[in-house]
Amino acid sequence: MARSWMDARQDDLEERFRAVRALSEALAAPLSDADATVQSMPDASPAKWHLAHSSWFFETFVLRDHVPGYRPFDPRYAYLFNSYYEAEGARHARPLRGMLTRPTLADVRAYRAHVDAALIDALGMLPQAGRALVTLGLHHEQQHQELLLTDLLHLFSLNPLEPALFNAPSAAPVDLPGALHWIEGREGLVEIGEDGRTGFAFDCEGPRHKAVLRPHALAHRAITNDEWIAFIEDGGYSHAAHWLSDGWAWVQTEGVEAPLYWKQGEQGWTRFGLDGRQPLNPAAPVTHVSLFEADAYASWAGARLPTEAEWESAAQNVAAISGNQLDGPACPRPIAAADGTNLTQMFGDVWEWTGSAYRPHPGFHAAAGAVGEYNGKFMSGQFVLKGGSCATPRGHVRASYRNFFYPHQRWQFTGLRLAKDL
Amino acid sequence: MARSWMDARQDDLEERFRAVRALSEALAAPLSDADATVQSMPDASPAKWHLAHSSWFFETFVLRDHVPGYRPFDPRYAYLFNSYYEAEGARHARPLRGMLTRPTLADVRAYRAHVDAALIDALGMLPQAGRALVTLGLHHEQQHQELLLTDLLHLFSLNPLEPALFNAPSAAPVDLPGALHWIEGREGLVEIGEDGRTGFAFDCEGPRHKAVLRPHALAHRAITNDEWIAFIEDGGYSHAAHWLSDGWAWVQTEGVEAPLYWKQGEQGWTRFGLDGRQPLNPAAPVTHVSLFEADAYASWAGARLPTEAEWESAAQNVAAISGNQLDGPACPRPIAAADGTNLTQMFGDVWEWTGSAYRPHPGFHAAAGAVGEYNGKFMSGQFVLKGGSCATPRGHVRASYRNFFYPHQRWQFTGLRLAKDL
Amino acid sequence: MARSWMDARQDDLEERFRAVRALSEALAAPLSDADATVQSMPDASPAKWHLAHSSWFFETFVLRDHVPGYRPFDPRYAYLFNSYYEAEGARHARPLRGMLTRPTLADVRAYRAHVDAALIDALGMLPQAGRALVTLGLHHEQQHQELLLTDLLHLFSLNPLEPALFNAPSAAPVDLPGALHWIEGREGLVEIGEDGRTGFAFDCEGPRHKAVLRPHALAHRAITNDEWIAFIEDGGYSHAAHWLSDGWAWVQTEGVEAPLYWKQGEQGWTRFGLDGRQPLNPAAPVTHVSLFEADAYASWAGARLPTEAEWESAAQNVAAISGNQLDGPACPRPIAAADGTNLTQMFGDVWEWTGSAYRPHPGFHAAAGAVGEYNGKFMSGQFVLKGGSCATPRGHVRASYRNFFYPHQRWQFTGLRLAKDL
Amino acid sequence: MARSWMDARQDDLEERFRAVRALSEALAAPLSDADATVQSMPDASPAKWHLAHSSWFFETFVLRDHVPGYRPFDPRYAYLFNSYYEAEGARHARPLRGMLTRPTLADVRAYRAHVDAALIDALGMLPQAGRALVTLGLHHEQQHQELLLTDLLHLFSLNPLEPALFNAPSAAPVDLPGALHWIEGREGLVEIGEDGRTGFAFDCEGPRHKAVLRPHALAHRAITNDEWIAFIEDGGYSHAAHWLSDGWAWVQTEGVEAPLYWKQGEQGWTRFGLDGRQPLNPAAPVTHVSLFEADAYASWAGARLPTEAEWESAAQNVAAISGNQLDGPACPRPIAAADGTNLTQMFGDVWEWTGSAYRPHPGFHAAAGAVGEYNGKFMSGQFVLKGGSCATPRGHVRASYRNFFYPHQRWQFTGLRLAKDL
Repeated sequence: MARSWMDARQDDLEERFRAVRALSEALAAPLSDADATVQSMPDASPAKWHLAHSSWFFETFVLRDHVPGYRPFDPRYAYLFNSYYEAEGARHARPLRGMLTRPTLADVRAYRAHVDAALIDALGMLPQAGRALVTLGLHHEQQHQELLLTDLLHLFSLNPLEPALFNAPSAAPVDLPGALHWIEGREGLVEIGEDGRTGFAFDCEGPRHKAVLRPHALAHRAITNDEWIAFIEDGGYSHAAHWLSDGWAWVQTEGVEAPLYWKQGEQGWTRFGLDGRQPLNPAAPVTHVSLFEADAYASWAGARLPTEAEWESAAQNVAAISGNQLDGPACPRPIAAADGTNLTQMFGDVWEWTGSAYRPHPGFHAAAGAVGEYNGKFMSGQFVLKGGSCATPRGHVRASYRNFFYPHQRWQFTGLRLAKDL
Repeated sequence: MARSWMDARQDDLEERFRAVRALSEALAAPLSDADATVQSMPDASPAKWHLAHSSWFFETFVLRDHVPGYRPFDPRYAYLFNSYYEAEGARHARPLRGMLTRPTLADVRAYRAHVDAALIDALGMLPQAGRALVTLGLHHEQQHQELLLTDLLHLFSLNPLEPALFNAPSAAPVDLPGALHWIEGREGLVEIGEDGRTGFAFDCEGPRHKAVLRPHALAHRAITNDEWIAFIEDGGYSHAAHWLSDGWAWVQTEGVEAPLYWKQGEQGWTRFGLDGRQPLNPAAPVTHVSLFEADAYASWAGARLPTEAEWESAAQNVAAISGNQLDGPACPRPIAAADGTNLTQMFGDVWEWTGSAYRPHPGFHAAAGAVGEYNGKFMSGQFVLKGGSCATPRGHVRASYRNFFYPHQRWQFTGLRLAKDL
Repeated sequence: MARSWMDARQDDLEERFRAVRALSEALAAPLSDADATVQSMPDASPAKWHLAHSSWFFETFVLRDHVPGYRPFDPRYAYLFNSYYEAEGARHARPLRGMLTRPTLADVRAYRAHVDAALIDALGMLPQAGRALVTLGLHHEQQHQELLLTDLLHLFSLNPLEPALFNAPSAAPVDLPGALHWIEGREGLVEIGEDGRTGFAFDCEGPRHKAVLRPHALAHRAITNDEWIAFIEDGGYSHAAHWLSDGWAWVQTEGVEAPLYWKQGEQGWTRFGLDGRQPLNPAAPVTHVSLFEADAYASWAGARLPTEAEWESAAQNVAAISGNQLDGPACPRPIAAADGTNLTQMFGDVWEWTGSAYRPHPGFHAAAGAVGEYNGKFMSGQFVLKGGSCATPRGHVRASYRNFFYPHQRWQFTGLRLAKDL
Repeated sequence: MARSWMDARQDDLEERFRAVRALSEALAAPLSDADATVQSMPDASPAKWHLAHSSWFFETFVLRDHVPGYRPFDPRYAYLFNSYYEAEGARHARPLRGMLTRPTLADVRAYRAHVDAALIDALGMLPQAGRALVTLGLHHEQQHQELLLTDLLHLFSLNPLEPALFNAPSAAPVDLPGALHWIEGREGLVEIGEDGRTGFAFDCEGPRHKAVLRPHALAHRAITNDEWIAFIEDGGYSHAAHWLSDGWAWVQTEGVEAPLYWKQGEQGWTRFGLDGRQPLNPAAPVTHVSLFEADAYASWAGARLPTEAEWESAAQNVAAISGNQLDGPACPRPIAAADGTNLTQMFGDVWEWTGSAYRPHPGFHAAAGAVGEYNGKFMSGQFVLKGGSCATPRGHVRASYRNFFYPHQRWQFTGLRLAKDL
């Protein structure tokens, strides 16, 4: 029997396959059929869809393309569960993903079992290209594990009953971390980006290339909820001066007054999470803020967001496994930084908005075929986030990892770390 | 044990209560939790919501207001399941009804059982006002039974798998009904409207009042699918001449080319229903057409829609129980008119669009309080439909019944009967 | 030289033609080229467009169709200045009417002169059908004279400088009219509608037909600004109870808190008009209210709006020439009712919303051809208004006249008179 | 009397002031009051507004702030003609700029004369900060000169009469330029950005900083209309493969099939310009394409867009005064590249989309106060364009100049030059 997903030896593909697939199902275990079906907004997808789409990925790019004689579980699923691969033909419209009350959650679990069995069967005979696609598929599924959690959080937040997906004890109060310390970064020529030569990396993380850094420093930790409250109390959401123009328009149109899921009551601020509504933990990193908010905060604080190169260069010395990431089917929560003044919280807790637009690294070329649509075509209008969050499955993230969202989006666990010029 | 819902003696309130409540559950029996939860558009509601809201109606207006000591099943449900009664306070936003994955379908069934038990317990002791509200609540629930079916139909139509809610044998082919015959209507002063003195009627059906009719005739039956195809083939959807101005704008904006749920394939026209996608039955009445389409068809045919007074006056001689209405948890389908030239299909099959705006009858006054919001406040922008459909529970409809929808809406079983001046 | 437009003998078509055409130009005389060109919203049209379109009507339906050898002023104008006649072919999109900086206002004046000359030339030789179309064209132009004024008012209201089109002395303060008196209306069978046999009437005003009235009374005068303030101060715009459902949604979506063009300042309420911003005259009829507002007011006042038949029946005894209508190029303003308790203000001052939907009179058939599109195709979703306003050219209105707007529209001079059941 | 605007000595501020101000008026000379007033879309502004706003800039930041005793022409203009400076307080909403039929074009000309007289009077006594603001104001006005032309072009394009602002002879046919040649760019560390130490530069052009370039080459000239037609004919707008995801959504939503202002007729392609509709010049650079289109073309051609650093580094050796820019009040038109294989068309003809997002240069800090809003707050969601166009006033552009637009916008004279990795 497979060991638990986080113990899987990285060199054993079957073990990793079993572990990653098992985590998806463990995360979905508490869901009702309805929980797994509803789509709360076009940006989000139903849990059932995540479970099916990640299976479709294996079925299509591995089983169909590399396993002779494979019979698809249901030929209609290709239409239902293709996400955005134009080369794979027509597909169900994204905003209508929540209309699929059939197939049921049980059907999708059967689909997963079918794909799992066929893939494990085939694994030993797969050519290297097929094994590489399995690896890609596992990282792909890990991305959908995080989305499954954040999409459910968004869905549950629209339910006036504010249900909790996970029963989790309220966090014990902790001391506020100390004041920000500034850690000087490298100056001059640095190298960033990965080509996947020493381990897996998505195509957009490469190629490895040089960048020039000016004298600068990064804050040793992320901005806390407590610090964000100071921003609010200083009128941060009421004055245009610190906002990007598009951000200010967004604040006014949407009536934004606090991070997503925050509410102010008689007992002070609360936030909604997968553990229900809870008092805000002042010491924890602020999360569910947009790039617009992060940028305004940085400006208000007399600082700025780090560039991707600054962040990545600093992170190259930090172990990606060190942070507060998702270790199993438990409630993801950002936690307070440990005492001290060393660089911390680089991996896990919250995705950190950078000031860098998501554009190709110099020398990037998308792969040919449908898999080439994985990243490259999204390179307009979005910003890079680094470091992973408390909802990122452990083992998924690294210094070169490039996450990307539009500047108004904030339903992921997104926060910020300040930078400044020296 | 209660007899089946359609045999319930009209004079036995408890029997009727049990029968109507049981039908709702029978209709919902084939639904999964997800089927019952998803909302396909703001105009429609989830099945679970219909089941809960109709219970909330009894809980609020009967149990809370007339049964001392009643304990609500869950005090939060008042917020979740109030539909539009402003006097009952704040409520969950209509377009977000589909976000309620919790309470589950099982929870809602428990809620229904709780309300049923309390109400049946209280029935013997209820004051007359309370009994009148129970009767109102039953008619209200019957309305939601029809909406439950039509809303599910709309939801399932957005699923590319086109699932069938009911397994129903394909209808055997039947001969086309004969050509339209024109039945001369009454002329001069007639009386229409009901005050509920001889049986239940909604407030908007009264008061009884006089109207003047000019010489006119009604078609003896509804327009068929076959006749509608002739309209399409004559370019009915391509020429502005026969359309109301708002209707023509709607056709062009929405790209309307046929009744809702129709598709043209190599084998000819098909339509989607609660029995899945089926070949179109040429002899059956056309349904799922908007007022705009019905009006354009009438104009193209050199006729017009009947006024409400013309229709109601003619229907006063027809037994409301005679038509093709909903007799139990089976697939609603319009069926071909019987042979002959007498007035037929007045009740059941399809709601018939009239040319009359839904405005108050002369002398109408809405009741005081929340129940007064039942009908009166919707009297702008909508048109009157008469006669009930194949999805209208038998026993619910009568000549004075006023259904109403906006002129572009067509997800109900809506069709038409022609009229003309003599 | 022609006498002034309001003295024109009704039996002399050329005189009337000259007078009506001259008034349009007098109304437009104070306009700059830019004033005449800009479109403030899709519902409104530029002044230049009104001047050109009313000329296109004569050019197309009279000169082109009935005057052999007529050469159009500019063949491209048919595309630019057709309003909505589908039978006349493609046309410039309504929301883009304000893009037409060319032709200039001077060009349009030349177009008018060209059409005028040709039409006056031809008048003696026109067949009867042609003369009837000239008469229709004159009534059509009078409708556009009123729209020209109300569209300019809307445009100027969006200019922070709040310019005045007319220099008009502020109205001297007058006493409030006395309390409402209720004038009993006819009961039983009445006749309404006109066929144009004794003078001009639009097609939709007929045919003459019978209607039944129940015992009722009409208020002797229109509701005043002072009375409307009482509605506001009683929370009229803050409570759902008196509003139609669509109306309440409109109030909330649009943030409506007072009639259009009203503002509350330190000196009390002001209103904007074609004479600029002025203190509100408490004694004058309220105007620029929507059907939704009028209906809510009536409900709040324990009354209702009159039906069209009630209003028209009462108006048949009142001279249409008696009211405060547009007598020339001066600032239109509703004025206070004269002392007394007789029925007054039936014609002029403000269009009175009725509770009747704009649907065809029994027996109505639209004419064949493009002119048949004049009225019939607008018969959905709108309500009937009666009696004309201070911006309606004198001579244009009569008891059977049917004006119609959507229930949310209020940039016309629209007000209300109460009715009640007896 | 001042010499013409393009001969003005760069060291004589008064002369430059007179010349730049005179060009704005020369460009507006052919406009009617209406032409100058209408706003064709929220992205565009009326010509009158450009003329007034550029004057408001001088009046506010120079005369009000640096000239004691200055009396504003009209104190209400500050509200009307502030564009986006939040620090300057409330202002007229951008989408309503076209409602300002008053003040008239004549009023705005008087406003300009008032500001000109006061500023020329004060020029000798201005402190250095004031003189710097005059220089900034002149470059600001040059930007609005280009916008005035492109906004008029958009307005005229919506007029079915397709008027020409300038009478310009049709361009004589020229030979197609030869095939693309690839010019190798610098590799390794380069310096880009300007601090305005040797001449004027906007704040966003600096600071001067290092960048790293990989081996690459730029096309020697811009892509032509002829080459673009090949893209169209190869199905460029019909296949998703070469498009950014947001770009493909834009193509489908907007129904884009060719560059803006192009039409295909029986005689082949035509384009609309300020000289009216003309046959397409195959040899001229393609223009009025969006970033999405430019990026798709580059991908289709097996190439990519240059980065800003690549472009700027190459342009540092090219004289900015060499290209086809705006030399006076004449019709701006891109022209064919001269023969040869050297780098050409870097300045003028068309703004060249780069693949670089518009984000701050390393070390950039916005100035304090309202003027600090000039550029910095627009740094999200937009892409950098380089090199100026045929509508850019000569003397305005330089290698470090950063223009920026959203990736879907294309009403400016925007085109592209290819780049590739070596």
